[in-house]
Amino acid sequence: MRKLSVIGIGAGDPDQVTVQAIKAMNLVDVFFVIGKGAEKQELVDVRTGILDSHVDGEYRIVEVADPPRDRTPDDYKGVVDDWHDRRAEVLEKHFAAVPDDEIGAILVWGDPSLYDSTLRIVERVLARGNLSFAYTVVPGITSVQALAARHRIVLNAIGEPVHITTGRKLRDEPTGNAVVMLDADCSFTAVAGDDIHIWWGAYLGMADEVLIDGNLREVEDDIVRTRATLRDRKGWIMDTYLLRQQM
Amino acid sequence: MRKLSVIGIGAGDPDQVTVQAIKAMNLVDVFFVIGKGAEKQELVDVRTGILDSHVDGEYRIVEVADPPRDRTPDDYKGVVDDWHDRRAEVLEKHFAAVPDDEIGAILVWGDPSLYDSTLRIVERVLARGNLSFAYTVVPGITSVQALAARHRIVLNAIGEPVHITTGRKLRDEPTGNAVVMLDADCSFTAVAGDDIHIWWGAYLGMADEVLIDGNLREVEDDIVRTRATLRDRKGWIMDTYLLRQQM
Repeated sequence: MRKLSVIGIGAGDPDQVTVQAIKAMNLVDVFFVIGKGAEKQELVDVRTGILDSHVDGEYRIVEVADPPRDRTPDDYKGVVDDWHDRRAEVLEKHFAAVPDDEIGAILVWGDPSLYDSTLRIVERVLARGNLSFAYTVVPGITSVQALAARHRIVLNAIGEPVHITTGRKLRDEPTGNAVVMLDADCSFTAVAGDDIHIWWGAYLGMADEVLIDGNLREVEDDIVRTRATLRDRKGWIMDTYLLRQQM
Repeated sequence: MRKLSVIGIGAGDPDQVTVQAIKAMNLVDVFFVIGKGAEKQELVDVRTGILDSHVDGEYRIVEVADPPRDRTPDDYKGVVDDWHDRRAEVLEKHFAAVPDDEIGAILVWGDPSLYDSTLRIVERVLARGNLSFAYTVVPGITSVQALAARHRIVLNAIGEPVHITTGRKLRDEPTGNAVVMLDADCSFTAVAGDDIHIWWGAYLGMADEVLIDGNLREVEDDIVRTRATLRDRKGWIMDTYLLRQQM
């Protein structure tokens, strides 16, 4: 039976890969790289570096071209759904072309369980029923954990929940207590209140990492400016933050 | 200046340690083990195994006795607060006794950023002002991530938030969409609804790992019974689960 591993490789620091991920990568014959064309060269280089430093022996890399996706849809879930279907088709085609005694793998930034579509796509390939395979998932360190470690903070207040959300959701449902991912629009500026602390980080775990923290009202302009500057300079940015109402 | 590392070592699978954690552990002269007396021998053995397999060279282990704590207080936060203070005092005493060119470390199950008191205690030692030191935090794989990987699930519904909470909070504020940690009382039985799926796991990443999933109403009795049996057999249990309202 064909085998597939979905392996979390951390947020960008090659040292934040686990021993389990390294062992799994060393069993792999072919790595499927989904949507490589759209990916920033720097991230491709980090991933190549992780493979170079941790994998002995031969492996192949197969690029799985990404179907186009409407980034500003009216029907967000419908468009995502359709895009997952098309990704599943393309992945199935490539996986079917691999000899069935080989092990395939998909490397995922962060952890496959948090705001990542890989598992949904793999489940769809299985659901299509054209290809049977066993698959395993290897967890990885997320950018949220990298953020917390670099700021040396605990995500929860004592005995309180942790709410992880997206920039989009934060605008719809503003709260002063949240971890925010996938925010292209500095949605923290839409959160009202003078007693909120923000811990922000960009390019976490990478050489260009930038950290800012302070009272939200005092540092928000600085973060907006810094983010724009960094993004212009590099052509892309990945950032995450924690908001916490001070008591 | 004295140095301290707070190192996340994952949920119990020795392979879920990161390269960063291994590098950090190899620089350490003295590991402070807090509350070892209260800890289950099996967990002490797993931690010893992690050190044995990943650390070359000499190190010392210093046991930091745990002050007693009222486990069923009326004033939960007040009691935790006081207990953190007393832990800080004890840690300070032990750290002060270490030569100041040495590196100390505290190993933390899971990740120091999620429902763990180590960073709060370290901050209190610093705030007391008797001892100055630099410290760094190394993230680790949490039991939540181990749970998600073993069940091969994504924690968030598409575009939706992730709510991580405790058993205590789940009883106060029942919801069919949450990741639940620190639940000694099977609080999922207090969540109403026929359309909730539960993914449950105990001893995640360890040899005795047990996984159950299904419609909450259909499997809740099984989980309650299994949990009681496992706990009786072993003398302790650690478990985590995800609830998700089906759409």
